[in-house]
Order: sequence, then structure tokens, then C-alpha cells
Amino acid sequence: MLNGERLDPPPVWLMRQAGRYLPEYRALRAEKGGFLDLCYDPEAAAEVTLQPIRRFGFDGAILFSDILVVPHALGQRLWFEAGEGPRLAPPLADGLLGGLTPDPAILAPIHETVRRVVSALPPETTMLGFAGSPWTVATYMVAGQGSKDQAPARRLAYRDPAAFGRLVDAIVDLTVDYLVGQIDAGVQAVQLFDSWAGSLAPAEFRRWVVEPNARIVAALHDRRPGTPVIGFPKGAGAKLADYAAGVGADAIGLDETVDPAWADAVLPKELPVQGNLDPLALITGGEALEGAVAAIRRALFRRPHIFNLGHGILPDTPVSHVTALLAMLRG
Amino acid sequence: MLNGERLDPPPVWLMRQAGRYLPEYRALRAEKGGFLDLCYDPEAAAEVTLQPIRRFGFDGAILFSDILVVPHALGQRLWFEAGEGPRLAPPLADGLLGGLTPDPAILAPIHETVRRVVSALPPETTMLGFAGSPWTVATYMVAGQGSKDQAPARRLAYRDPAAFGRLVDAIVDLTVDYLVGQIDAGVQAVQLFDSWAGSLAPAEFRRWVVEPNARIVAALHDRRPGTPVIGFPKGAGAKLADYAAGVGADAIGLDETVDPAWADAVLPKELPVQGNLDPLALITGGEALEGAVAAIRRALFRRPHIFNLGHGILPDTPVSHVTALLAMLRG
Repeated sequence: MLNGERLDPPPVWLMRQAGRYLPEYRALRAEKGGFLDLCYDPEAAAEVTLQPIRRFGFDGAILFSDILVVPHALGQRLWFEAGEGPRLAPPLADGLLGGLTPDPAILAPIHETVRRVVSALPPETTMLGFAGSPWTVATYMVAGQGSKDQAPARRLAYRDPAAFGRLVDAIVDLTVDYLVGQIDAGVQAVQLFDSWAGSLAPAEFRRWVVEPNARIVAALHDRRPGTPVIGFPKGAGAKLADYAAGVGADAIGLDETVDPAWADAVLPKELPVQGNLDPLALITGGEALEGAVAAIRRALFRRPHIFNLGHGILPDTPVSHVTALLAMLRG
Repeated sequence: MLNGERLDPPPVWLMRQAGRYLPEYRALRAEKGGFLDLCYDPEAAAEVTLQPIRRFGFDGAILFSDILVVPHALGQRLWFEAGEGPRLAPPLADGLLGGLTPDPAILAPIHETVRRVVSALPPETTMLGFAGSPWTVATYMVAGQGSKDQAPARRLAYRDPAAFGRLVDAIVDLTVDYLVGQIDAGVQAVQLFDSWAGSLAPAEFRRWVVEPNARIVAALHDRRPGTPVIGFPKGAGAKLADYAAGVGADAIGLDETVDPAWADAVLPKELPVQGNLDPLALITGGEALEGAVAAIRRALFRRPHIFNLGHGILPDTPVSHVTALLAMLRG
């Protein structure tokens, strides 16, 4: 499919399909402790990755991990404050990595998770790896946490583009190695999550979203040809076509605010597209869900389409609605 | 200009130009008390509206007020928590206005503010009124405050579109009366702020952004022909052209994430466009500011263009950067 074949029904997986909406995930968390402990525990992370495959038979399994393991490996401390979110220390308000001691070995357990999942996965299920895109990762590294409108990173990028550029370069380099490692461990495709692509003005979008993602894609195509890369520039809006043309990804993820008919009209004809059900339509279920699914299918049936959400599944999503979604798609 | 004339240099005003970045505003706040007290005090609100005109000679003066006075007049209590933001009580989690007692007279002081500003304004300065768009106003009414991704209103709109629709209808009706009152008091154009237009999936965008804004624009064109309406669907992304075609506003505001060259290509040729400098470029100043201003001018010089920010000016913006911006524009 990622190589351009059109399938009917479309293959389907859901962002964050291994997560809190599943009782079996909550049970394992209660036993094993924090989210990050799970990410670095290959046995537990493999089990979590496999849970939604067993329950629903999704066509893709997505590695259970977090985009912030890359800053961790670049030398920032990383932890999650309960109920609040990630923390990275020290925050790189000046963008300078100088005082940090990188430790790429931190990523080794994640590659081990991939190997374990792949050995247990049904042969018809595609194993997907991922990493955060440099801009999104940098927003957390600069602020030391999530930040309103990503203002700290955006301010630094305006004030000192050279320093910010060196930070982005370091993220690009480690991300390529990290994803090559995932591919070597067995993932069959990788997704680049640019969750905060939507906050940048157009010139900054080209410089900090399009260019670094393009470098990662080119490096992966060079070092591991044949492994498709899905680019997901959440919130890119009308700049999506520029992203697709500039980045050279093998497939493009659409967030739920994108009109799929518009995307179909502006993206190259054979380019596979992934998305883009509103997670709140999935929570609502019933007619709202049916209507939303039908509209997406209608807009994208002419091209290779991977059905997915427009962003991660929410913790209060009823499991029965996921079952209903799969029934709708698979008829 | 709003009637389609192309001007060089373009007219300029800045969203939130009457606000905390101005020492004279902070002084008046220190004397007079809370933000909302100011909104309902015609003498103080008129003074605040005039402050940036005196200091910078902007081409437009924007009424100093808040979009949440409409829910207040619909019967919710309204206050601002220091350092946090607006609160509306009771929150309308079910969308039902039934228990509330509307009091449109609450809006009278704001119309008085307009009269006072107009009588004091230099004749070459355009007086602009405004209101929040129904979707954005409803997000606050449902949640009782600002909310992450506007999830409470989005959930209600999926779960019970009929109830949510009645809430939107009530906002539309009062907003039309409120803006007619502003026009009768002397504003020469009005802007509809849809600050949270960006969070909706495409079908919901048509139903809750395009349709209600279209009804307001049609009613204003009918009741007060000749007064231009500026529509500002912040975050609409690629749905901007649908908004422009569907709403029928006389001008379209672009947020700072919109590529103005794209907007120029997809919007009707003679449609005036407003925007869209990144407020962070204005804070940065220097070459970053010059480059951003030049790119916007270059993209939009062929059509009627009102220079503005892509959203409100930030409190830590140096006053000297605003002076520099005006010098750049006016040569």
C-alpha cells in the first residue's frame, strides 16, 4: 500500500492505538509503573504494542515509544510529571547542546522492542516505527516541556537561527541513526510526527519543517532504500502541498482538520495518504462516526489510502466504537 | 480600501493595538482596575481605544472590548481570573440557554464607547467594531472558560448538534443586533473574530464556522448595507477559500501561519486581505521583521491589502518595534 497500491477496504491503524483507552494497557501500567519505564522495557513495550493487534487485528502495529527519547539520548534528562506531561532538563533556552553528554545507547532497548514485536506479529501485519520531527522535538528541548503556541522555540528560531539550526541538525542526525536502527530491527515503514508543524509562519515552516524532514527522508532513502516514510505535519493547513513536494515522503498523514477532498485535489495523484478521522467523532460513535468515515472514504478512494485518525486516539474512547469503526471499514 | 481600492502604502492597524504592550494602557489599568471594568466604562474604553492612535497614527482604531460580552448579555456571569483568563458561569455543558436571563442592555456602554471614540478620532482614521464569531463564542460558553482544543464544545456539537445549533442561533441573533448597534454608533467596518476556527474537522467547519458567519454577514449587509465586514477565521488553513466563498465577507483576515502568496492565489482577485505578520517577528525586530514585512507586501501588493498582524500583539512587544514597522511600511 505504501508502495502505491490501492486497497479496498483500506488498511487501518490508529495513532496511539497502544494506549490508555485499552483496559489491558491500563492493567499493565498499574503493574509496571510509569509511561517512560514502559518505553524502555522491551518486554513490556512489545506487549503493549501487540495488545491492539490481538484485540482488533489492525493492519499496522505502531511501536510503543515516545518522541522525546531522542532528546534524552542527546543528553537532556527526561521524565513525565503525572497529569501534566513531559519534562526535559535543562531546557535549552539558548539552543546550545554544549553542556550535554549524549548517550545514544539509551535508544537500544527501543530497537530491542521492535525485534520482539516483529517476531510475534502476524505476517500480514505491518510493523511501523516512528520518530518526532526535528521542529517538534526542538520545541520541547527548548522549553523543557510542552509550551503554549511553541513560543519559546519560535522566539529562539527568530532571535538566533544559527544556534537553533545547530540544534535541529543534531536532532536530524540522531533521528536518522535511530530510524535506521528501527528499520534494521524490523520495522517496515516509519512515520515522522511533526505535531507542532502548525505553529510556524510560512518561511519558518519551510526552514524548520520542510527542510529538516526532507533531510531525514533523503538519508533514509539513501541508507535503507525501499522502506517507506510517512510524513505527518499536523496543522500544516494549506502548506501541506509544499510539505509533500519539499519533503519527499512516501506517504502523507492528514490531521482531522484537513478536508480530504482538498488534499486529494492538491497532492500528487499516486501519493498514498493516511488519515483523517476526528478522534472526537470516534468517541461520539453512531451516525456522527458513520458520516465522518464515509466522507473520508469518498474523498480518498481514488488513491492509496491508509485509514487512520487525524491524531491520537483519546483515553475515553469506548473500545466498542473502535470495533464498530473496523466493521464499517471492513464491511 | 475595504471597498476594493488598492493603496500603497497599505493601511495598517494591529490586532490588540490597544493593550498591555503600551505603558499608557498599563498606567490606566493600574488606576481603573480590571480588564472588564474597562470594557464597560465608556470613558476609559474610549481613552484606551485612542491611545495607540495618538502614539502611532494607525489607519484604523479598533474598539477596546472583548468577545465575551455577548455571552454576558445572553445571561452568563462573566469575570476574568487574574493571570488565567475568562470565566463564564454556569458553563453550558448541554448547550441549553434555558435557565439564563438575557440582558442585552449590558452592551449599551460599549455602543457609548464607540460614540465617544468616533467623536474624538482624526477624520482619516477608520473606526472598527468587532464581535466574536458564534463558534468561538460558543466554545467559551460551553466550557465556561478557554479549553484545550475546544474539546467540550466540539464534543457537544457531535453529541447533540440540535442543542448546539440553538446555542449558535442565539449567538448569531444577538451578535447581529450588537454589531448593528456598533454601526449605528459610528463604526465604519466590523471584524468577526473566529479565533478557534482551526480546531474543527471540515464538515463541522462548514456547519459551525461558515454557515453562522454567513448569516451574520448577510444580516448586516441587509440591515446596514455599505458597512464592510472583515472575516477572520484563525487557523482555517486550507479551508480559507471555502470560508471566503461561503461567508461572503468583504475582506478576509489571514493568521500568521497562512502563506500570503497561497492566499493571493486562491482568493478572488479583488477581495481585500488583511494580515499577517507573525507577532513574534514583531517582537524580534531587525532583519527578521524586515524580511517578514517584505515577504507579505510582495505577496499581496496586487490586491487591496490591510497590513496587520496574524494575531494579537503580545504584551512584551517593544514599542520601538511598532514604530519601526510603521516606518518600514510608510517609507
